[in-house]
Amino acid sequence: MTTAKSRASDEAQIRMLIEARVKAVHAKDVNGAMESITPDILLFDVVNPLSHRGSDAERKRAQEWFSSLQGPIGYEIRDLFIATGDDVAFSHCLNRYSGTTTNGGQLGMWVRVTTCYRKIDGKWMITHEHQSVPFDVESGKASLNLEP
Amino acid sequence: MTTAKSRASDEAQIRMLIEARVKAVHAKDVNGAMESITPDILLFDVVNPLSHRGSDAERKRAQEWFSSLQGPIGYEIRDLFIATGDDVAFSHCLNRYSGTTTNGGQLGMWVRVTTCYRKIDGKWMITHEHQSVPFDVESGKASLNLEP
Repeated sequence: MTTAKSRASDEAQIRMLIEARVKAVHAKDVNGAMESITPDILLFDVVNPLSHRGSDAERKRAQEWFSSLQGPIGYEIRDLFIATGDDVAFSHCLNRYSGTTTNGGQLGMWVRVTTCYRKIDGKWMITHEHQSVPFDVESGKASLNLEP
Repeated sequence: MTTAKSRASDEAQIRMLIEARVKAVHAKDVNGAMESITPDILLFDVVNPLSHRGSDAERKRAQEWFSSLQGPIGYEIRDLFIATGDDVAFSHCLNRYSGTTTNGGQLGMWVRVTTCYRKIDGKWMITHEHQSVPFDVESGKASLNLEP
């Protein structure tokens, strides 16, 4: 059984993992952003396709995303909740990504994020992540302007 | 620490929960579909808004969805993976929902599903669910015709 003490420690470790990732994405540090990703991660991403398997695919996605924006990436987290068991954990939150695209357009959107973790050799690692926006039934368009 | 035996039992319980839910949705049994949902569930749904909080909101969503379709709802699950800890678990899969709308249209779409569970008073319950489709960057449209 997970004790209150180990649970608090596990939650603190996952919180640090999330904060390190925010800093890495903000600085467009691909290696930093990939630090806690398992080689066989399953990613359900905001944009096509339906799913990506493996950290190589996620690294490629991160590189494409980072190179599509000028300067640092804005990355705000809201309503973060973390649940930890002995070696399985999950978190959910709303993230706002913002920045200026290389052709001068403004990006700014809230994305729903669910992240799943396993403790592997004593270290929490991300084995699955689901990021998305909902869509509007009438127009069939992805909803990129919703506010929490 | 979770033992191999308790882990297998926990995974079997979650698999039964998922199968019961498939049957309930297929039969449009709202109470059955809500059986393992906590009162404070956080739902990131396929369509707007950004999030729903609480089982009342989820019940209303289920009722609206069930009444928009004629006859039973097709519900196929693919690539189901379940990870269980002592009292935290998650699962992810691709679901195909299909049916005929009340105005005669055909529904058939693959949805990415991530479900998060906690063991409460000895019973696995769903505290969070994230269902979505990705969108196409060029058109801005939700991708409703992707195949796994």
